[in-house]
Amino acid sequence: MKSLFNLENICVVLVEPRGPRNVGSVCRAMKNFGLRDLRLVNPKTNHLAHEARQMAVKATDLLEDARIFDSLAESLSDCATAFGTTRRFGKYREDLLHPDAAAEQILPLSSTDPVALVFGREDKGLHTAELDLCQRFITIPTDEALPSMNLAQAVALCLYELRKGQGRLQGAATGRKRLAGVKSMEEMYTHMEDSLTECGFLNPQNPDHIMRAFRRIFGRAGLNEREVRILRGLWSQVESLHDGRESVDDE
Amino acid sequence: MKSLFNLENICVVLVEPRGPRNVGSVCRAMKNFGLRDLRLVNPKTNHLAHEARQMAVKATDLLEDARIFDSLAESLSDCATAFGTTRRFGKYREDLLHPDAAAEQILPLSSTDPVALVFGREDKGLHTAELDLCQRFITIPTDEALPSMNLAQAVALCLYELRKGQGRLQGAATGRKRLAGVKSMEEMYTHMEDSLTECGFLNPQNPDHIMRAFRRIFGRAGLNEREVRILRGLWSQVESLHDGRESVDDE
Repeated sequence: MKSLFNLENICVVLVEPRGPRNVGSVCRAMKNFGLRDLRLVNPKTNHLAHEARQMAVKATDLLEDARIFDSLAESLSDCATAFGTTRRFGKYREDLLHPDAAAEQILPLSSTDPVALVFGREDKGLHTAELDLCQRFITIPTDEALPSMNLAQAVALCLYELRKGQGRLQGAATGRKRLAGVKSMEEMYTHMEDSLTECGFLNPQNPDHIMRAFRRIFGRAGLNEREVRILRGLWSQVESLHDGRESVDDE
Repeated sequence: MKSLFNLENICVVLVEPRGPRNVGSVCRAMKNFGLRDLRLVNPKTNHLAHEARQMAVKATDLLEDARIFDSLAESLSDCATAFGTTRRFGKYREDLLHPDAAAEQILPLSSTDPVALVFGREDKGLHTAELDLCQRFITIPTDEALPSMNLAQAVALCLYELRKGQGRLQGAATGRKRLAGVKSMEEMYTHMEDSLTECGFLNPQNPDHIMRAFRRIFGRAGLNEREVRILRGLWSQVESLHDGRESVDDE
């Protein structure tokens, strides 16, 4: 199946990395999950050093192709959206995404434009001025006893979720059929709301209250077209039960 | 909220690790995600070496508490279930779990008994005889171009999924209510099958065909008790529509 999403359109940006082994390990993780574009902002190490190559294993090609930039802004110049990783709360709290939710946003964006995943320094992460260059924010939920993760492991988790999201969105990973489109889902919801209001299950003054619960259930489940057809069959049955009763009542 | 699942009941077993940095990085990842029990089978390195401590950062306590065993069998003697990680297919193909599905199985098991996550050598993984000591198998989906992951990163991914599963199963991570129990789900399915058979939507000769589709949908969604009540309300409404028509027919 041709990929709907282009993982090669997603770049990893490391800001001032200090550890050559970390840079090498990031390359390996990128190749593990199908990414290729590594960008280094003002690196504090020689990313082509022996230790970096050693950790990159069979991903030394990514290491050699890595591009160096003087500033984060420059490294993001061709990217439509940048996702910054942070453990800081405060002003970004509202918008913090866990890696799985971030993947769901990144993948559709990546189908048309380059998207950047930005990781900060091993010890201090990204500065506020750097986070300000990002439009969305990712945080990895960790234990209070030791919240700070190894840089390359944090990258690996985010890329693993991208790969997983790609499989889920394409329905390929689980062997499931492709997800139903927005149009077909909305038609199903309209049919559902009409039939369940008509039959008296939904309050016509406030159908949204219960409909929202159903939208959450089916949204979480991620329906394929066959499942949408089954549900529409059920709503048709509810309609015909109700119509049957009405027509009998009318006699 | 008190944890339903005991992450401290889950141990990480490394079989013949060679890299002291890998062992240290595994400790850091364990502490990042709330695990404590590290077991080393016949390690090919001094796990208390400087490089290991350096990578463990603030998790050197786990490194120092790590227990050494001569054989995998010995290290698993108190564990109810062992999950072996492998990239090999063949005889284990049928049972290979991705880390998220594995987490869903591991967490309930860990509430009563120690459960082991077993990782093999950096270069060669686990031997067949070692996999034979495991009851379930985990594989991490990676790219064909470079399928082999760094050991500590593989551990980190599995532990991240455990932590995520814990949050999901407790409904804590997303602020959602706790998932409905098996009993209440089964009662809902029985009610559903009865009402949908009675009203003619399900074929009484083969209700399972469509019911299986609904079980998959609601299984994927993970319903809470409120959502189960809403669905039961819907099945009751279908029943009363049908009964209403019947009683009118009977007049």
